[in-house]
Amino acid sequence: MTDRIRPGPMVRRTVHEVTPRSVQARRDTVVTEEPLEIRLGWPGHAPTRVAVIMRTPGNDFELAAGFLLAEGVLDSRTSPRGIAYCVDRDLSQEQLYNVVTVTLADPPLRHPSSRSTPVSSACGVCGTQSLDEVFTAENGRLPMRERVDARVFNELPDALRREQSIFARTGAVHAAGIFGFDGTLVVAREDIGRHNAVDKVFGARQLGKAAFADDSILCASGRIGFDIAAKAAAARIAVIVAVGGPSSLALDLADRAGITVAGFVRSGRCVVYTWPERINGLG
Amino acid sequence: MTDRIRPGPMVRRTVHEVTPRSVQARRDTVVTEEPLEIRLGWPGHAPTRVAVIMRTPGNDFELAAGFLLAEGVLDSRTSPRGIAYCVDRDLSQEQLYNVVTVTLADPPLRHPSSRSTPVSSACGVCGTQSLDEVFTAENGRLPMRERVDARVFNELPDALRREQSIFARTGAVHAAGIFGFDGTLVVAREDIGRHNAVDKVFGARQLGKAAFADDSILCASGRIGFDIAAKAAAARIAVIVAVGGPSSLALDLADRAGITVAGFVRSGRCVVYTWPERINGLG
Repeated sequence: MTDRIRPGPMVRRTVHEVTPRSVQARRDTVVTEEPLEIRLGWPGHAPTRVAVIMRTPGNDFELAAGFLLAEGVLDSRTSPRGIAYCVDRDLSQEQLYNVVTVTLADPPLRHPSSRSTPVSSACGVCGTQSLDEVFTAENGRLPMRERVDARVFNELPDALRREQSIFARTGAVHAAGIFGFDGTLVVAREDIGRHNAVDKVFGARQLGKAAFADDSILCASGRIGFDIAAKAAAARIAVIVAVGGPSSLALDLADRAGITVAGFVRSGRCVVYTWPERINGLG
Repeated sequence: MTDRIRPGPMVRRTVHEVTPRSVQARRDTVVTEEPLEIRLGWPGHAPTRVAVIMRTPGNDFELAAGFLLAEGVLDSRTSPRGIAYCVDRDLSQEQLYNVVTVTLADPPLRHPSSRSTPVSSACGVCGTQSLDEVFTAENGRLPMRERVDARVFNELPDALRREQSIFARTGAVHAAGIFGFDGTLVVAREDIGRHNAVDKVFGARQLGKAAFADDSILCASGRIGFDIAAKAAAARIAVIVAVGGPSSLALDLADRAGITVAGFVRSGRCVVYTWPERINGLG
């Protein structure tokens, strides 16, 4: 059993490594997965639970802020008044660092209970009350301003990988990074949930830990599902790049939101799915 | 924009393929992602929504049955009385195949509203009302009966890949397969959500489309998070095998549930994390 008191990003376990010629017991490092409960309050409204998210501990406040941004509770110009680990007496010792309370200065833009509680960060539509709500959270189309060179995309997955200290030791964790249009890394985060990693990078901006413009690139490990596109749209980020491919619904949303999506970025190649107008030499 | 009427597992789009020497517009195939709303009813209880899940269309009834199994609404011996696409007049034409109603012969084992609605298949704990509920859905430890040869594990990822017709055309979809302890494939399913693919294989058993014993192997593409382990525990499957690695919480659950977990199955090697007693020559 792993230790639940103040969880770190990794735990140690004894494992058996099996090869064609041998079996060897050894110590190994495993990525931590723990639930995070997010509570939300504002003046005149006592904090109530809005989500339970499975996540890798670390940058929990960024995760909470980024999650609330993606849910439409915050917008990209609104910072929470406070974020803290909950110290309720009724919390068991082992959950002390698994509950975060976000306090707003004003009532939220969208009341979380109107979207239903609780919701999971693992899915951009999780917690929606019906199909009709899935497609409503849009902020208008992003303007086409700066252009970007597709050659920049090819460097990003490797640059992101170099930031992945947990991946290097466990081989089982996702990452998200924000890059400028010139390929400069601004901020990178890891999490067992691809979606959490995305929430963390946007939450870092929300909390003033990282500064980047809308004309930036989100590079995500893995594939581009609807939830990733929806989080980028909520954060008003112009370009999404990934080693994996996109889904139909992610592209439908990117079409409407004005987001350029490039997938299968490998070996100097990529496939541009939406808004080639933003790329030098295309559209 | 993709066509929303009767969605198939893939859609066609025009894309730009960018290489170091050229840019080429061409038609491409993208995996479909669409929301599925699951409604649940029983005698004296009109169908109500219990979940909205982002999924790849196909085997939707299996997905619904497997999801309800993992949620504890059904157990592995209980089949629904009926499953059908909803034909409500208030449904828009484009959502006609995105709503499934499951009818039970008797009231559910666990009332879904006691776990909260809606929930997402993307996360095994999504929809739980609090942290305490995350760890309650256990059915007791699986007995150690048959043993399995770890050499069998090495064949499974490739055997699963050969079943992945959507992956072959889109490169962006997960899969899950059930194999006997002798390595025989029983059933395989694909979905953009790794968790949905797992629900579909267990749902296939639930609906009588596939027969397999508890002493079987679940082979999943990607990593082994808590949600995958929780779904296997709900289905009482003895072994989980994956190309990726597991999380700490998945292993905690496997420890308690008596599930053998083997990760990083590659090139004739694997790492056994829990219950080596079930593997020939170990424990």
